[in-house]
Amino acid sequence: MARVPDVPDLVARARRGEAAAVARLISLVEDDSPALPDVSAAVASHTGHAHVVGLTGSPGVGKSTSTSALVEALRRQDKRVAVLAIDPSSPFSGGALLGDRVRMSTHDTDEGVFIRSMASRGHLGGLAGAAPQALRVLDAAGCDVILVETVGVGQSEIEVASVADTTVVLLAPGMGDGIQAAKAGILEIGDIFVINKADRDGANTTRRELRTMIGMRPEEEWKPPIVLTVATKGEGVDDVADEIANHLSYLETSGELKARRTARARREIEALALASVQRQFESESEGIDDLAAQVEAGDLDPFAAAQALVDLSGGGR
Amino acid sequence: MARVPDVPDLVARARRGEAAAVARLISLVEDDSPALPDVSAAVASHTGHAHVVGLTGSPGVGKSTSTSALVEALRRQDKRVAVLAIDPSSPFSGGALLGDRVRMSTHDTDEGVFIRSMASRGHLGGLAGAAPQALRVLDAAGCDVILVETVGVGQSEIEVASVADTTVVLLAPGMGDGIQAAKAGILEIGDIFVINKADRDGANTTRRELRTMIGMRPEEEWKPPIVLTVATKGEGVDDVADEIANHLSYLETSGELKARRTARARREIEALALASVQRQFESESEGIDDLAAQVEAGDLDPFAAAQALVDLSGGGR
Repeated sequence: MARVPDVPDLVARARRGEAAAVARLISLVEDDSPALPDVSAAVASHTGHAHVVGLTGSPGVGKSTSTSALVEALRRQDKRVAVLAIDPSSPFSGGALLGDRVRMSTHDTDEGVFIRSMASRGHLGGLAGAAPQALRVLDAAGCDVILVETVGVGQSEIEVASVADTTVVLLAPGMGDGIQAAKAGILEIGDIFVINKADRDGANTTRRELRTMIGMRPEEEWKPPIVLTVATKGEGVDDVADEIANHLSYLETSGELKARRTARARREIEALALASVQRQFESESEGIDDLAAQVEAGDLDPFAAAQALVDLSGGGR
Repeated sequence: MARVPDVPDLVARARRGEAAAVARLISLVEDDSPALPDVSAAVASHTGHAHVVGLTGSPGVGKSTSTSALVEALRRQDKRVAVLAIDPSSPFSGGALLGDRVRMSTHDTDEGVFIRSMASRGHLGGLAGAAPQALRVLDAAGCDVILVETVGVGQSEIEVASVADTTVVLLAPGMGDGIQAAKAGILEIGDIFVINKADRDGANTTRRELRTMIGMRPEEEWKPPIVLTVATKGEGVDDVADEIANHLSYLETSGELKARRTARARREIEALALASVQRQFESESEGIDDLAAQVEAGDLDPFAAAQALVDLSGGGR
């Protein structure tokens, strides 16, 4: 059996910056631990400081290298930085660094950087369910900037935006990236666009294409900037860090930060409430069996049975 | 505004075999009409007679032709037959026949056959949400056999099994169908296997492959038969109809029919109950806004807010 965690102690230690305590708390999130509501309650009043930045882009654009270079740039600005890498397909992670994160090892001995990968498969609600809790832990631990990225492609690339204050979309020249990105819905979610590997042919074409496509977005106050980088040489990465700071200022002064975070909280509350009701249903197994038998026999219709189940479970009270 | 349906009248007419009334009732299901609980209540006591047979298979195996030939075979046994084709990707159907269902037109003037396509996109719960209600309507209308098939591939091919008493898996020689099928999980769900286009090269190889793979399934009372057909010539199709009848006898005598249908009712009840709770949450929009604002401000944690939402909505009462 797992040791019962001393949540208040863990949170106090995490707030003092102890990486081991932060890691343990995130493991509780990852495992969907029964202690999760306690963790959530203990960190709630210490949240709201961290700037959550989602990093997204197709494989091959240099996401890992860019993340690493961005960590360095943010550290030069003396920010406390966390990297949360979420793997939506993996059923386990063990909290280990990702295999391809070799360059990240340069940050290993830097106390201002916390790096963690987290599996979200199996977690009720997947990425969308697990990430907000983990972000709250890192926020309460005093991080100034939290970089969130997903491993893999597809839906999870878009989902990153739903947990971030600012979304950075990474592209690379050529390979029809522009069109691919549009297809994946990635253009709509970008607050900042980065064309990495900008020393390659086609960087200006990609920028032009991108500008046209961004121009097709509905009129908005924030004009998403396009930054060219060569992450392997660190070129342009300070500009990305600056644009991230600019976007935060815009979010704060426009009231958009509060709006985005409130909308996020709303989705989170609804998802947790539904999960709670679903658990109550599961605890009414015998009652459901009885209702199902009546429906099978034609003595009850499924809608009436569903209402009976809702009544039976007492609506979570 | 849509006309308010006279549900008792529609059900009475459907039970007399009026195709127009059946079609109208299925449209109410398809549109997720507010009258749906009334429809469900009105048909409940008239259900349990029809044998629901799911037909599934990759594109190119001759599913439409096989369905049509099977309808003819079942009509020769003087069975009342319905075909419900579900399109999980289409947002509309209008109740029209599917475009590729040309051969089906031979049944158009046959009063013992009801053919209907139904869109399930947009319906809360997709195929799994819409199909059981439509099947109850067809059951109450006096159908002896209801053939259910999905348009398109992927998950919906497997979902068919979850609404059927008997699942028929269609394959064709060559094209690595066997392996593809195993990958898609189709082998696990088949109660009867049909190798169509059996006049082509490789039919026996496919049968051998299939037998080996079925042999790997856990020991079970029912040994899934493999039937070779040439649907375009009607060859072997009577054998399929016979195997369908055999499987029904097995289901009845083994008690498996009742078990499968009760398990199905259970899933349906849970899904409907969750949908009902979700609707209640939606009606508490102001309350959720207030909770979300508190979470955003750090005054409340999301788990406590979720519990407050469950309390607020009164658990559906």
